[in-house]
Amino acid sequence: MNQPVVSDTFATDSELLRRRESAMGPAYRLFYEKPVHLVRGEGVWLHDSEGRKYLDCYNNVASVGHCHPNVVDALTRQASTLNTHTRYLHDHVVNYAERLAATLPGDLSVCMFVCTGSEANDLAFRMARTVTGNQGAIVMENAYHGNSIVVTELSTEEYPAAERPDYLVAIEPPNPYRGSYRHGEPALGAKYAAFAGDAIEDLAERGHQPAMFLCDSIFDSNGALTAPKGYFHKVYEQVRATGGLCVADEVQSGLCRLGDHMWGFEDSGVIPDIVTMGKPIGDGHPLAAVVTTPAIAEEFSRKFRYFNTFGGNPVSAAAGLAVLDVIEREKILQNVHDVGTFLGSKLKALAEKYELVGDVRGKGLFYGVEIVRDRATLEPGEAEAQGVREFLRENGVLVGTTGPLNNVVKIRPPMVFSKSNAELLLETLEQALDSV
Amino acid sequence: MNQPVVSDTFATDSELLRRRESAMGPAYRLFYEKPVHLVRGEGVWLHDSEGRKYLDCYNNVASVGHCHPNVVDALTRQASTLNTHTRYLHDHVVNYAERLAATLPGDLSVCMFVCTGSEANDLAFRMARTVTGNQGAIVMENAYHGNSIVVTELSTEEYPAAERPDYLVAIEPPNPYRGSYRHGEPALGAKYAAFAGDAIEDLAERGHQPAMFLCDSIFDSNGALTAPKGYFHKVYEQVRATGGLCVADEVQSGLCRLGDHMWGFEDSGVIPDIVTMGKPIGDGHPLAAVVTTPAIAEEFSRKFRYFNTFGGNPVSAAAGLAVLDVIEREKILQNVHDVGTFLGSKLKALAEKYELVGDVRGKGLFYGVEIVRDRATLEPGEAEAQGVREFLRENGVLVGTTGPLNNVVKIRPPMVFSKSNAELLLETLEQALDSV
Repeated sequence: MNQPVVSDTFATDSELLRRRESAMGPAYRLFYEKPVHLVRGEGVWLHDSEGRKYLDCYNNVASVGHCHPNVVDALTRQASTLNTHTRYLHDHVVNYAERLAATLPGDLSVCMFVCTGSEANDLAFRMARTVTGNQGAIVMENAYHGNSIVVTELSTEEYPAAERPDYLVAIEPPNPYRGSYRHGEPALGAKYAAFAGDAIEDLAERGHQPAMFLCDSIFDSNGALTAPKGYFHKVYEQVRATGGLCVADEVQSGLCRLGDHMWGFEDSGVIPDIVTMGKPIGDGHPLAAVVTTPAIAEEFSRKFRYFNTFGGNPVSAAAGLAVLDVIEREKILQNVHDVGTFLGSKLKALAEKYELVGDVRGKGLFYGVEIVRDRATLEPGEAEAQGVREFLRENGVLVGTTGPLNNVVKIRPPMVFSKSNAELLLETLEQALDSV
Repeated sequence: MNQPVVSDTFATDSELLRRRESAMGPAYRLFYEKPVHLVRGEGVWLHDSEGRKYLDCYNNVASVGHCHPNVVDALTRQASTLNTHTRYLHDHVVNYAERLAATLPGDLSVCMFVCTGSEANDLAFRMARTVTGNQGAIVMENAYHGNSIVVTELSTEEYPAAERPDYLVAIEPPNPYRGSYRHGEPALGAKYAAFAGDAIEDLAERGHQPAMFLCDSIFDSNGALTAPKGYFHKVYEQVRATGGLCVADEVQSGLCRLGDHMWGFEDSGVIPDIVTMGKPIGDGHPLAAVVTTPAIAEEFSRKFRYFNTFGGNPVSAAAGLAVLDVIEREKILQNVHDVGTFLGSKLKALAEKYELVGDVRGKGLFYGVEIVRDRATLEPGEAEAQGVREFLRENGVLVGTTGPLNNVVKIRPPMVFSKSNAELLLETLEQALDSV
């Protein structure tokens, strides 16, 4: 190997913070009150510049673990052989498209490649508008789908509600813990799904019909909510009755994350018209995809050609193929199911021990632990949730917080998380809950 | 190294074509009547699955050459060490931002990272709209800026003119060969720049003011046109007088491509408010950036936070740093200048020898050779240009065709192109011109 071209010495945190602010500006944010200065990772472990080790319970992007050797090898081999684009024939992108399509049910057999989840959702919306001739969109309140101009508008978590465009209606996500309909009521799925019908009427009053209903299969930015039984079936039914397409955003819920199926929507038994994928499919390398039916792909192609310089390049495709190999070889789905079942039951047990833990939801290796000050009024414990997060960070365990009230501790580790990793997380989480 | 996870056997062309159509759908296009099935690349050379070798005179993405060993090493080292995102502190992204900013003049010192040129232009427009409060945009006719929903609208080459949105005006690019004002007329720059003034008036009649003027520094999809003297100065002056920002799209013209400066706009002596970068900066790996002034970055951050999961990740930043190292170490700018000067003069000489060659323009390592059937009427030789392209492909030299009339042979090789590479191209190009 040649002499390293990239320095391996690390700046001090304070110096790096100052230089970062100056060179990257004030729009970027860092995690944690004391940001973590990372230098190395492997599997579920991250290491900082001072030699401290952290259990990563947050990063879904490193889906099969940080720096998985098979992914690194595939990337290295291909980067040293050829990296070009899809205007030449290359085997990897076709092999990858076929293997990816084979993981999906129904007619979902055509893959188009992009580089980010934002690009995937942007392309899905363009396809839906082109194919349906409609302009409208229905999303969840407090959703996050990415950061292009249009996808920012769809990301109701970030976009100013007062400036919400005319074509868009956001509906209440199913939250049986603090939403309009609560645990114990009958037909929760149907009741929450009725909001989609209201949204269709709202759009109609503005002269719009839905081009698409776009939804995560686990409501990540709403605090790891899962859909009640029958919810997606009933929403899809109403959207399709207007000619709209149903788009499943699998950036968060896909690739075994929820433990029972490869893709999150499979938990509900629905089959979307378009599936968008991002973060985890390249184990950290920029790779994302839109998968749809031959009929939709063909209709779209009547109006638009499609090309994305980096999307589906041989190196990215090699990384994607390696991730699929690892998923099979290491029985990742089974691991997510087994460790997830253990972790989920132990987290739910915390709700009995700690008054602060109002609700635990999620599945597989994706959980939200909602912190409340009062179980009757559901007064959110935002500061307490932050306190838990910061305690964990100080004690070598990385988690995040999320939700519209920012009071949900988010647990979403690399999927090679083991039972003993879960035990360490649980033990430290108990200490954190004792401390706040 | 572990057992390879990605197969190195190649399908036959006909089988791969069939499977590709099925797995990736009909919206994708391939280059050449007989597509090239690539398997390996190094420097300026590409190899197909049957062992044939091609001189690459087209791919700017592999900016410092296919599979440059320093870039591959940097990528490999970092991919096996850590790949994460900008919500943790990491040295590489800050080092890269600083080094990138140091290549730019004026106040252009804040870098925000994305993965593709599309994302860069999309973010630039969002910044321009947010900061100016205006909604309008002025672009060139037949421009290409990328493929998000909004950037597709800005890409007048692809987007149906009849559906052009209200906020957008496209102006005639300066083409002294066949445009409204021709070679020999005085004050070409001022005359073409006056179209920007008309565009501002058009927008005003629709109730819009320009948020931005977005323009390549070499008019790639218009057939490698360069701006006449004074053009950008006068356009910028008019746009800025309305409060609009000037955005230089350097995806095509940047990173030494034009031979005299690191960035294409420097040829005109202007300083943009925002610079967008893509394809070449990662030597093929998904890396792109928006660079702006501290004032614009700060104003934008008052309304929006910014995060892009893969944008500016440690592996991409390592690739970007390695490319900047190679540019310095291998004196790439000097090479582009020297080989480009030689190639340009020889191409221009072809216009004297071949009636078919109506115009040769461009600079550095970016040329357009416009093919015409009649030098008086300028009747475009589209079939002849395709014939030249296909002849070259059959004889081991890869070029493209471009321009609104699709009659311009586009020459834009990796920047490690040597004088002897240029001689081989010229020799084969003469054979091609003799053959059509």
